[in-house]
Amino acid sequence: MSASTIMPIRWCDDGHLELLDQRTLPDRHLVRTVTSAEEAAAAIREMVVRGAPAIGITAAYGVVLAALEQDDSGWPDRLEAAMATLAASRPTAVNLFWALARMREVMALQRHAEVAPVAKLLEAARAIHRKDLDDNLAMGELGADLIARSEPCAVMTHCNTGALATGGHGTALGVIRSAWNRRLITRVHANETRPWLQGARLTAWELDQEGIPVTLAVDSAASLLMAQGRIGWLIVGADRIAANGDVANKIGTLALAVQARHFGVKVMVVAPSSTFDLEVASGVEIPIECRDASELTHQGERIVAPQGIDIYNPVFDVTPASLIDAIVCERGVIEHPDRTAIARVIETCR
Amino acid sequence: MSASTIMPIRWCDDGHLELLDQRTLPDRHLVRTVTSAEEAAAAIREMVVRGAPAIGITAAYGVVLAALEQDDSGWPDRLEAAMATLAASRPTAVNLFWALARMREVMALQRHAEVAPVAKLLEAARAIHRKDLDDNLAMGELGADLIARSEPCAVMTHCNTGALATGGHGTALGVIRSAWNRRLITRVHANETRPWLQGARLTAWELDQEGIPVTLAVDSAASLLMAQGRIGWLIVGADRIAANGDVANKIGTLALAVQARHFGVKVMVVAPSSTFDLEVASGVEIPIECRDASELTHQGERIVAPQGIDIYNPVFDVTPASLIDAIVCERGVIEHPDRTAIARVIETCR
Repeated sequence: MSASTIMPIRWCDDGHLELLDQRTLPDRHLVRTVTSAEEAAAAIREMVVRGAPAIGITAAYGVVLAALEQDDSGWPDRLEAAMATLAASRPTAVNLFWALARMREVMALQRHAEVAPVAKLLEAARAIHRKDLDDNLAMGELGADLIARSEPCAVMTHCNTGALATGGHGTALGVIRSAWNRRLITRVHANETRPWLQGARLTAWELDQEGIPVTLAVDSAASLLMAQGRIGWLIVGADRIAANGDVANKIGTLALAVQARHFGVKVMVVAPSSTFDLEVASGVEIPIECRDASELTHQGERIVAPQGIDIYNPVFDVTPASLIDAIVCERGVIEHPDRTAIARVIETCR
Repeated sequence: MSASTIMPIRWCDDGHLELLDQRTLPDRHLVRTVTSAEEAAAAIREMVVRGAPAIGITAAYGVVLAALEQDDSGWPDRLEAAMATLAASRPTAVNLFWALARMREVMALQRHAEVAPVAKLLEAARAIHRKDLDDNLAMGELGADLIARSEPCAVMTHCNTGALATGGHGTALGVIRSAWNRRLITRVHANETRPWLQGARLTAWELDQEGIPVTLAVDSAASLLMAQGRIGWLIVGADRIAANGDVANKIGTLALAVQARHFGVKVMVVAPSSTFDLEVASGVEIPIECRDASELTHQGERIVAPQGIDIYNPVFDVTPASLIDAIVCERGVIEHPDRTAIARVIETCR
């Protein structure tokens, strides 16, 4: 199984990071050079890079960039400050905190070193990146196995969970890639995913690049497609999964899961085990990030809403486990997810 | 009860029509001058004016403009040709056909006249316009009476069904205006309504103009708002209602009704009796208009989706009667709508 050739995050051996700017796709392919942890944090905050796994990978490389910096303070303080900045860049994605915790473990092992352990940190960041790709390929096969239980069908996905959002291949879109390669799906219905249009700009672009048939529609058309019997599976990613199986994901996921249940469409969530946050008992404890009003009031320079009105712009919602048929992670498939089923798969893999 | 001061359609006594261009609101207030039936049809097709009742009123004045034209052919042929052009401007809105049928009745009564009966036709068009406003005011009170059965609450609406979409006051937004005046609602949650953003550009603007508290969100956030218990009623308009109570309305209405049922939010459809099409037995017979792919692939000049991919851009969907708690028309409230309940109210009013 080959991974996608799309490379959103690339470490360069002369000591900088290159990020494919996801804000201007599919119109312009701009590569941004990142040379410090602060720049890495800004790239995450400003969504040059997005997608929970890709954010974690970028943050790990950001710690390496901090280790490469020269200043008078001790390196452990410098790295701690960098990690605090990186941790504050996006509040919901648990992969970010997970990746930083991994880097902190490496730091702790080297805490008596006189200079920052750049090589060890880079090795750890690269391992996080490589493991994410390997995990995606594994999840791709596991998810495709679920789809293989019934006749080939069209599937729907939301937001972008592809190569652009991860270390490569993708989570939900990785399952779709694997299932397409195995001829298990006939077409992908991509929701445009307001307000940031990840579905239109990124998912449709990734699928089109690889010749996988894709139809784009507004988020609101999902019920019509489901009512017409066109969709076999709704396949989405996750930004955080609580111990009971409640899933925080892109705004609109809850709406789609409710509709899927109503119309008899099965729901698959695909996310690496690093997305599970067993400290969080249920979805009600997950904070919902809200972003700037301008994402709704403006399209570029064009004003599309009255100035100064109240705007509610949540980035995520929480889908209860009861609406999810299966959660796929790299260690296995959790059908009818609940606390017990999740503990069985996740605690053994930690 | 006073109507809104917003005037989207204005007949000028020197023989032309003025339309407030709804494509550039809320940023720019442009008034378009319409001097022929062809221009009226173009204004409907290009959505200078939109909203089922407003389309019907514009088409009626369009017939008057055709009557005012001078040419060598006989006036009945000229008017028939104009009505054919107007009827082809938008396929779903039954009010359009209803208004043209009314104008044809006036023509038929005058068929032996040597010249076109301009005064009679103008009188008929004005009556259609005035009756729409009167009906909206009546529906506003009936709908507000339903809301009055429980404690004051926030409500959600979709698309624009206000003064801009009608002869004044509005249908669903007319109920909201009336209920606000009676202190029965605390806030309006307006969905932005992709792809044309009628909620962001028009509904939020109308409410903001009149000081009614409004919160704007992406269509996908509706479930989160409903799950938080913030919404008492979902209140929407209709473009066509079948004999069994199935409702064709703006894309996304079906999704919202499914979510409302799941989260225990009540659903009210508000539409004048001219919206009922008793020739259509159920929603499956209603054709779904699809519009241009560019509404999804472009934001002004900006490209936001890969060029050449498959786009599904339906304008309407059909909500089954079983998901609707009440349909409000000017003649009464139809609770738990079905064929019998609808026939009782609609057939007596025709």
